[in-house]
Amino acid sequence: MSRFWSKVTNSITPYFPGEHPRDKKYIKLNTNENPYPPSLKVHDAINSENNSNIRLYPDPDAMELKLAISNYYKVKKEEVFVGNGSDEVLAFCFPAFFNCGEVISFPDITYSFYPIYADLFGVKYKTVRLNNDFTIPLGAFSKDVKGIFLANPNAPTGIALGTSEIEAFVKSFSNTLVIVDEAYVDFSDQSMVQFINKYDNLLVVQTFSKSRQLAGLRVGFAIGNAELIEGLEKIKNSFNSYPLDRIAQKAAVAAIEDEQHFKETCAKIIKTRDYTFDKLVELGYKVLSSKTNFLFVSHERFSGRELFLRLRQEGILARHFPKPNIENWLRITIGTDEEMGILIEKLKGLVV
Amino acid sequence: MSRFWSKVTNSITPYFPGEHPRDKKYIKLNTNENPYPPSLKVHDAINSENNSNIRLYPDPDAMELKLAISNYYKVKKEEVFVGNGSDEVLAFCFPAFFNCGEVISFPDITYSFYPIYADLFGVKYKTVRLNNDFTIPLGAFSKDVKGIFLANPNAPTGIALGTSEIEAFVKSFSNTLVIVDEAYVDFSDQSMVQFINKYDNLLVVQTFSKSRQLAGLRVGFAIGNAELIEGLEKIKNSFNSYPLDRIAQKAAVAAIEDEQHFKETCAKIIKTRDYTFDKLVELGYKVLSSKTNFLFVSHERFSGRELFLRLRQEGILARHFPKPNIENWLRITIGTDEEMGILIEKLKGLVV
Repeated sequence: MSRFWSKVTNSITPYFPGEHPRDKKYIKLNTNENPYPPSLKVHDAINSENNSNIRLYPDPDAMELKLAISNYYKVKKEEVFVGNGSDEVLAFCFPAFFNCGEVISFPDITYSFYPIYADLFGVKYKTVRLNNDFTIPLGAFSKDVKGIFLANPNAPTGIALGTSEIEAFVKSFSNTLVIVDEAYVDFSDQSMVQFINKYDNLLVVQTFSKSRQLAGLRVGFAIGNAELIEGLEKIKNSFNSYPLDRIAQKAAVAAIEDEQHFKETCAKIIKTRDYTFDKLVELGYKVLSSKTNFLFVSHERFSGRELFLRLRQEGILARHFPKPNIENWLRITIGTDEEMGILIEKLKGLVV
Repeated sequence: MSRFWSKVTNSITPYFPGEHPRDKKYIKLNTNENPYPPSLKVHDAINSENNSNIRLYPDPDAMELKLAISNYYKVKKEEVFVGNGSDEVLAFCFPAFFNCGEVISFPDITYSFYPIYADLFGVKYKTVRLNNDFTIPLGAFSKDVKGIFLANPNAPTGIALGTSEIEAFVKSFSNTLVIVDEAYVDFSDQSMVQFINKYDNLLVVQTFSKSRQLAGLRVGFAIGNAELIEGLEKIKNSFNSYPLDRIAQKAAVAAIEDEQHFKETCAKIIKTRDYTFDKLVELGYKVLSSKTNFLFVSHERFSGRELFLRLRQEGILARHFPKPNIENWLRITIGTDEEMGILIEKLKGLVV
């Protein structure tokens, strides 16, 4: 450590994003990447960027991308914020909406970056314990908090709440900002985007990294009423004028415009997910009902760590979270049918 | 405004990055972009990225890029931090090294993002008034601050301090972190990188946006001792795991490896700058001696605003800062010889 480190730097435990090992070729099912390449129109968009333009700053407002998103979701462009991955969008929510020392809330088992953002920005948090079946007990949240993060579907469980349940929640928590993190929503059908003008305390965050195959290019967005979006813009423009580069902006426009590719690949992943679910249940694994592009899996004969290591030995990377209540579970991304075939064989080999 | 805005969101005035108008084609000399395209190797690197790989997250540690930078600058890879433009690197310095309420310092006329970062992260600041000739009075800084930002060469003045002066300063301010922002250093020859292991209170920040022609791709970096860099990594990894996308990482590696292109284009800009300087002085303009890719220009017969508007009418964009002491000056980026020829003609037209 350096004597110049701040208190936050001294005390914070950063997020660990999942390994990207290079020692050998793995079937990589540990970071919820999409197994299918992006639309060829994305490829064309990347290659069409004139080399000379790279010397010029990108549009700081990413207006074409905001327009493409607003067209797709039938909202106004003032209701769209874009950032460097949904991680950056979520990070900006903290200084935008919460003061140092204020309290927010989220489930104890959810995206593990939320408490780290809170620590970074000096925001306090109370966690709500999931039910034993890993569903989120919405009734257990206190109204005495400034903000609530709901990942829906939740990660790493994969379980989704219905929009009607969330709507009732947002309505009754009218003095709390409810941020619904819909990173995996395109593998479900429960987006809250339709409600952003009905509730001024609702912000929806999504990403191009999973369903739109652009993890490598870092594009996320938020949709909410224009005042919430303006708050995010103020913070973004006080941090970094140009977080989205020229190529990422163009590629994301191409990705959102190719709806057919998006729908086809989502449908394939859902089909593979449901098939894999059935097979693993048949083999005696416990698998949570997933509305995402991953499955949360356990087996009574193995600890999560053991399952993780066994798969790793077999050349398959999954994600293990050494945390209370989920240490015996493994999060496994849905790959291609071929990859899932190998996964099923390997998991079968462990139990028969 | 939204009732959910934080105190910071309510009170902060964001940075304004310079206009990128689309109403007509301008000679764009307002954001210090490089007039020459990046190396063809950058183009090849961008086009060589396999479309399928875009679905995968980039290397969160940008290791190949760190290695390329460390090779070029003859430092260890642990002494290199990379971020989404030097703006993000500078932003991370605040939570990494300063606690809320602590005081830092910088000149009153310098990169205008510094006070905004400070406001965003709750850090206080004292400014030091430039000398009447726009040089930085190093002797006027107080040792009673936690950090000092020195843009060297300074912007928007273009004036550089020598490394020996800065070294003496860093040495005598041994309990203050001195962050030297070298965004324009490649148009000078006064980098402090050579001193990072001699002084643990020295951090150097640079960018690929100006001299390496990658403004459109958002790549900046810091070089300092491994402990300072580790502090920045902790903050970055508590904010966004992957701020640099796959293409930006590859393109930046290609840019730093093509030293010949870099040196040739820097030399051309320096030559054009010095020629333009002479011509404008001949015409009766006041021009500060610049070690950057811009000139800071004024004329006794015009306010800065007037000069700005006259040039804009003529199709030339420059940058005007409506701030005390510099409101009669204009910052003009060095373009191609052809662009500067037109600028000189237009400025001549105003005064003869």
